[in-house]
Amino acid sequence: MQKRNLEVCLTPALLHLHDFTESIVVVIDIFRATSSICYGIENGAVSIIPVATIEACESYRHTEFLLAAERNGEVVDGFDFGNSPFSYVKEKVGGKTIVLTTTNGTHAINMSRGANKIVIGSFLNISSLCNWLKTQPNDVLLLCSGWKDKVNLEDTLFAGGVVHYLKDENYSLDDAGIASEDLYNMAKEDLGLYLKKTSHSERLKKLGIEEDIAFCLNLNITSSIPILDGERLIRMV
Amino acid sequence: MQKRNLEVCLTPALLHLHDFTESIVVVIDIFRATSSICYGIENGAVSIIPVATIEACESYRHTEFLLAAERNGEVVDGFDFGNSPFSYVKEKVGGKTIVLTTTNGTHAINMSRGANKIVIGSFLNISSLCNWLKTQPNDVLLLCSGWKDKVNLEDTLFAGGVVHYLKDENYSLDDAGIASEDLYNMAKEDLGLYLKKTSHSERLKKLGIEEDIAFCLNLNITSSIPILDGERLIRMV
Repeated sequence: MQKRNLEVCLTPALLHLHDFTESIVVVIDIFRATSSICYGIENGAVSIIPVATIEACESYRHTEFLLAAERNGEVVDGFDFGNSPFSYVKEKVGGKTIVLTTTNGTHAINMSRGANKIVIGSFLNISSLCNWLKTQPNDVLLLCSGWKDKVNLEDTLFAGGVVHYLKDENYSLDDAGIASEDLYNMAKEDLGLYLKKTSHSERLKKLGIEEDIAFCLNLNITSSIPILDGERLIRMV
Repeated sequence: MQKRNLEVCLTPALLHLHDFTESIVVVIDIFRATSSICYGIENGAVSIIPVATIEACESYRHTEFLLAAERNGEVVDGFDFGNSPFSYVKEKVGGKTIVLTTTNGTHAINMSRGANKIVIGSFLNISSLCNWLKTQPNDVLLLCSGWKDKVNLEDTLFAGGVVHYLKDENYSLDDAGIASEDLYNMAKEDLGLYLKKTSHSERLKKLGIEEDIAFCLNLNITSSIPILDGERLIRMV
C-alpha cells in the first residue's frame, strides 16, 4: 500500500494544525469516554449520540434514549449515568441509544467533523482497530482528547500503542507519534503502574474511580469499532 | 522552599492554557534560535532584540545593529546571518547588539511577554539555568517553540532534561513534564542518535546544517543565562 501519514495530535487545541479532511481520525479519551463508548457499542447499544453540552443532552429528555452526562469526572445531577464503563454493560445499554456528553471526549469527537471517517479507540479495542486501520488507504490522525485541552499521559500512551502496532505498515510518523510510541514502549509492561505517577491519576483517585481506571487499561476485551455515522456513533465492525 | 509548579508547554499553541504571570518562562528552541542566543550572549553580544517579523528586523537597517533573520531554516536574503550558532562567535558578535527574527523561537519569546521573567534555555547552558531556577521561588513554565506550532522532539527532550535536573527540588509536575523527562532519560546517552529518527531531522539534513545540530546538543559549554529586559535579551548571569 502507498505510504500514508500517521500523526498524533496530543490535544484538541492543536487540531487546527492538521488537515484531516481525507484522514481517518481516531478519537481517544481513555479515562473514560472512548473506553465506555467501545464497551457500550460492544454490549449492544444501538447507537451513542455525542453532544457538546449538558443542555443538548437534556433536550433528549422524555425520549426513549438514555441520557449520560459527565463533567469534571462526575455524573451530572439528574442524569442516568456518566462515563463509567460499568454503566455500559449489556443489561443497561443493550438495544438502547445513549445521548452522551463528557468533559473532553465528546468535544474531541465534535471537533473532528469533516474527517473522512471518525472512529473511536481505546485499549479495549486496540487490536481490532489497528487491524482495520491497516487495511485502509487513508492517512490516520490519532486525536487525544486530553484534559481540558492540556496533554495527558493516558491518551498519549494509547496513541503510542497504535503507532507501535502500525509502524511496520509503511506510515510516515510525526514527532508526536515518535514520542508517543517511545512512551508506550516504556510503559507497556504495566500501564497502570506507569500511569500512577501522573497528575491526572491523583485527580481520578480523589474521584474514587480506580476500578474504572483499571478496567479501561484492559487490552482487547472488545472487538467492535464505533464509527460516527451522521450524528450517531454506531458499530462498524 | 515552598512547593512550586514545573510545567511543560509543548508548543506555543498551548500557551493560553497556562497562567504564567507569576512564573519564570524558559523559552526553548534548540534547533537553533535559543542555542544561538545563549552562545551569542556568552560570546559577548551586548544584547539580542527578538522581533516577530522580517519587516521589524529590516526596520533596524542603517543602525549599528547586526541583523539576523531566519525563515524555514534558511537565512533570509539580504540579512547578515540567520540562526546558525557559528554566526554567534566572539569575532562576529562581541560588543554588538543583534536584531533577530526566526520561524519559531522569537515568536515564542514574544508570546511569553507578561511572565514574571523570561529566560532562554538550551543544552549549552542547561546546568547553569537549572542551578539558577532552583534558587527562585517562582513556578516554572518550560515553553517549547516547536515547529510552526507543532510539537517537536528536540525541544521536548530539553524540557525533559530540565525536569530531570529539577525534580528532586520540590516541584509539582504536569503530565507533559512527566512524559518529557521519560523521553529525556531514554535519549540522554546519545541525544543526537535519538533525534536522528525525527521528522525534523530529515528536514534539517536537507538544509545541510548537521554541524549546527551537533553543536546545539553540546551540554554546558556556556554558563550565561539570557533574560528579557524590556525589548532586549541581555546577560543575567
